[in-house]
Amino acid sequence: MTLPPSPRLLDQLQALLGAKGYSDDPEAMEPWLTDWRGKYHGRAAAMLSPATTEEVAAVVRLCAAQRAALVPQGGNSGMVGGATPDASGNQLLLSLRRLNRIRSIDAAARLAVVEAGVILEVFHNAVLEQGLRFPLTLGGKGSATIGGLVSTNAGGTQVLRHGTMRALVAGIEAILPDGRIFGGLAPLKKDNRGYDLKHLLCGAEGTLGVVTAACLRLVPAAAARATAWIGLESPETALRLLRCLDAALGRQLEGFEIIPHACLTAVLRHIPQTRAPLDAPHPWYALVELAGDNDHDLGGALQAQLGEALEAGLISDVVIAKNEAECEAFWRLRDSISEAERAEGPALQHDVSVPVDLMPRFIAENPARLATAYPGARALSFGHLGDGNVHHHVQPPLDVDGAHWLSVHGEGLSRLVYRHVLELGGSISAEHGIGQMKRALLAELDSPARLAALRGVKAGLDPDRLFNPGKLIE
Amino acid sequence: MTLPPSPRLLDQLQALLGAKGYSDDPEAMEPWLTDWRGKYHGRAAAMLSPATTEEVAAVVRLCAAQRAALVPQGGNSGMVGGATPDASGNQLLLSLRRLNRIRSIDAAARLAVVEAGVILEVFHNAVLEQGLRFPLTLGGKGSATIGGLVSTNAGGTQVLRHGTMRALVAGIEAILPDGRIFGGLAPLKKDNRGYDLKHLLCGAEGTLGVVTAACLRLVPAAAARATAWIGLESPETALRLLRCLDAALGRQLEGFEIIPHACLTAVLRHIPQTRAPLDAPHPWYALVELAGDNDHDLGGALQAQLGEALEAGLISDVVIAKNEAECEAFWRLRDSISEAERAEGPALQHDVSVPVDLMPRFIAENPARLATAYPGARALSFGHLGDGNVHHHVQPPLDVDGAHWLSVHGEGLSRLVYRHVLELGGSISAEHGIGQMKRALLAELDSPARLAALRGVKAGLDPDRLFNPGKLIE
Repeated sequence: MTLPPSPRLLDQLQALLGAKGYSDDPEAMEPWLTDWRGKYHGRAAAMLSPATTEEVAAVVRLCAAQRAALVPQGGNSGMVGGATPDASGNQLLLSLRRLNRIRSIDAAARLAVVEAGVILEVFHNAVLEQGLRFPLTLGGKGSATIGGLVSTNAGGTQVLRHGTMRALVAGIEAILPDGRIFGGLAPLKKDNRGYDLKHLLCGAEGTLGVVTAACLRLVPAAAARATAWIGLESPETALRLLRCLDAALGRQLEGFEIIPHACLTAVLRHIPQTRAPLDAPHPWYALVELAGDNDHDLGGALQAQLGEALEAGLISDVVIAKNEAECEAFWRLRDSISEAERAEGPALQHDVSVPVDLMPRFIAENPARLATAYPGARALSFGHLGDGNVHHHVQPPLDVDGAHWLSVHGEGLSRLVYRHVLELGGSISAEHGIGQMKRALLAELDSPARLAALRGVKAGLDPDRLFNPGKLIE
Repeated sequence: MTLPPSPRLLDQLQALLGAKGYSDDPEAMEPWLTDWRGKYHGRAAAMLSPATTEEVAAVVRLCAAQRAALVPQGGNSGMVGGATPDASGNQLLLSLRRLNRIRSIDAAARLAVVEAGVILEVFHNAVLEQGLRFPLTLGGKGSATIGGLVSTNAGGTQVLRHGTMRALVAGIEAILPDGRIFGGLAPLKKDNRGYDLKHLLCGAEGTLGVVTAACLRLVPAAAARATAWIGLESPETALRLLRCLDAALGRQLEGFEIIPHACLTAVLRHIPQTRAPLDAPHPWYALVELAGDNDHDLGGALQAQLGEALEAGLISDVVIAKNEAECEAFWRLRDSISEAERAEGPALQHDVSVPVDLMPRFIAENPARLATAYPGARALSFGHLGDGNVHHHVQPPLDVDGAHWLSVHGEGLSRLVYRHVLELGGSISAEHGIGQMKRALLAELDSPARLAALRGVKAGLDPDRLFNPGKLIE
């Protein structure tokens, strides 16, 4: 339990940051004290909003000297309560949103230096103006900030080709728990000076310090794309298709998502102006996208490969988008699954990964396990097959009060899912992180070796436990 | 200073490992107590050679319980004395060479699980038999082991396209300092369960535990390559050429090396059966290679791009290898530079990196700085321009006793080089690591923020400092 910051410390922070950078007004703080999903509510002694790296460092030094706890926050659009303070009112909310400058975009080197508070969509647009693309995107792009995306090692729909955030981070600037500035922005492709702090801070959820800026890799803006909607029998056949496409077109393959028929049905039922791309229903669909420059006939290449797959009986039917509007329409079906599902009623959502090879097995076997323990529960898996990352949602039986059923059975059911994932060598958090939502779960289910190492790292870098206490690891 | 292992501990280790796995015979240990370059010599209380992961774990548990220090070693081909014990005779040499199984090669998933003691060249050949390639190679491939390559985050000549070792590691199995097995071999593309131990162990030089196996990514065996030898004016124009090629052919571009004329001259002088690819001399040369499948006309694409560059005056002359033998001949010129240089006499070698953009500036400015402080010293920079990593060698003035001159001026001269590198945001160790050779240098020159963080991580994971003491960080 953290002690409350002293009135003296609060005065010092107020003097340091001024009116724009300091607030303890409950109304002003209110929007930032509840997480994006509305599951976690906290209190804060004050909200600190420094505007420069040096101000962040000064804040950290003051707080470290007086043992006050800091909760870093970016766009407040995380999924696991990782940026919400606890209920004590003793923690200080450290907002990075005023660090919102794009310091540089180097088109020739395809690198940009971006401060933590820059919103992803703003950054997308800024680089697009220079004919470049930052190849990470996700639903929350209108609020998610660069600092948060780095600190949570964010994923999204383009990971298959471009990797998660850590693959796109060429350098990091951060304030370490002792208040020192780690100036690691230089984009070094080779640097063997010991432990890689960049990779350590990426995904640390603000528990080892606070990221103030990042040097990010860019790619040429994709001049063309080709998108196909494919009907097929099973995740197993989808995986075989993925292997074929990867071997033939791996350098252009940007997306490979799978959707079960029940998810498509829900989307068509609840989302206006949607229609099924194929006339006949199929048990599963794959949404495949190639991207590249104009030199390649992407559509032709995709058609040739899928034609072969059709002939070989690997897939049942396919339609290739004729134009950009059809590409968008296909992706809208995929991106509307969560919304459609919410309209269907409550469900348990699991953000899990297993090795790509084992994903069909997980998707096939998990519903059978659930059926034994929780008859009538309906499991739906959809998403990034190519990343070994499905969103595995479980709906209550049709004939019960869903919310009540979930309140009784939810925790046990989720444990069954997570244990299955771990049996297959998978992760209980593929892309959303641990935060406060899965902290106890991690401590319960992860291996003692790994937990001891995480605790060792935390103790070594933040011995007073002042950075985002109560998150990730005890 | 480590205490000597007790006779009781040595008995226990001998009982555990048997005759094949335990030796304190000075003659048997001798080859492993001197580093590859012959610069460091050590002693060991015994050499432990466990044959399985479980045996390694048992060794670590015994040693941890009795506070005995372990020095992990693979092929003993490191460049910085990182695998050589100290002179006390109190440390135990932990050889991983008997962990030499390739556990699996999954051609469809393009992944292999390989034990730490497998020699790189053996692994290359094993995957090639399945039409695959492990895209990391270096001079020491006949002795370097997978565990050592992971622990030093090895680089080599194919980093431009495929990255250093850490980019090729999909999973790691390691024994942590408490003797627990970290079973992280599952190749998860998305895994956000807190601090990334895989990236932490990669490049940790055995100071945070010992890697026993890795899951490694493979690529299709390159069916074709196209190689060009280019004459040009300066590293500056070479960088502009690199940008052009990267924009046009980035997905095929596997190598981009630069060579100054003086290096070529030395090679032609000392290495038999070499000849200059171009008739006229040029101040600098670039060696460029594309690799890909047979579908692409690599030679045609390279010719078209270089034709444009020639027409635009960016390059002065070019020859494209007509066949595999010519490709090999071009690469032989590049790969013989170190040997030719040794024949020229002693030199100071610096393995440094700066941001790619700043490399031409470093290459241009550093000789000028040296000329002021050390008149007559001759600097040669060659190597991986595309990675921002040059091998920066400095030869003594022509008219002096070179060895003596270097013994007097070498340390100061190297500091001047390293300080220049740091001014440009670079690294004093691009690919060879820190080991014992650069430990004091790192402590002197690196930023206090970074050093404090490295020490924190070390203290958190190996509080008794039993893993490779005296290496990397105090």
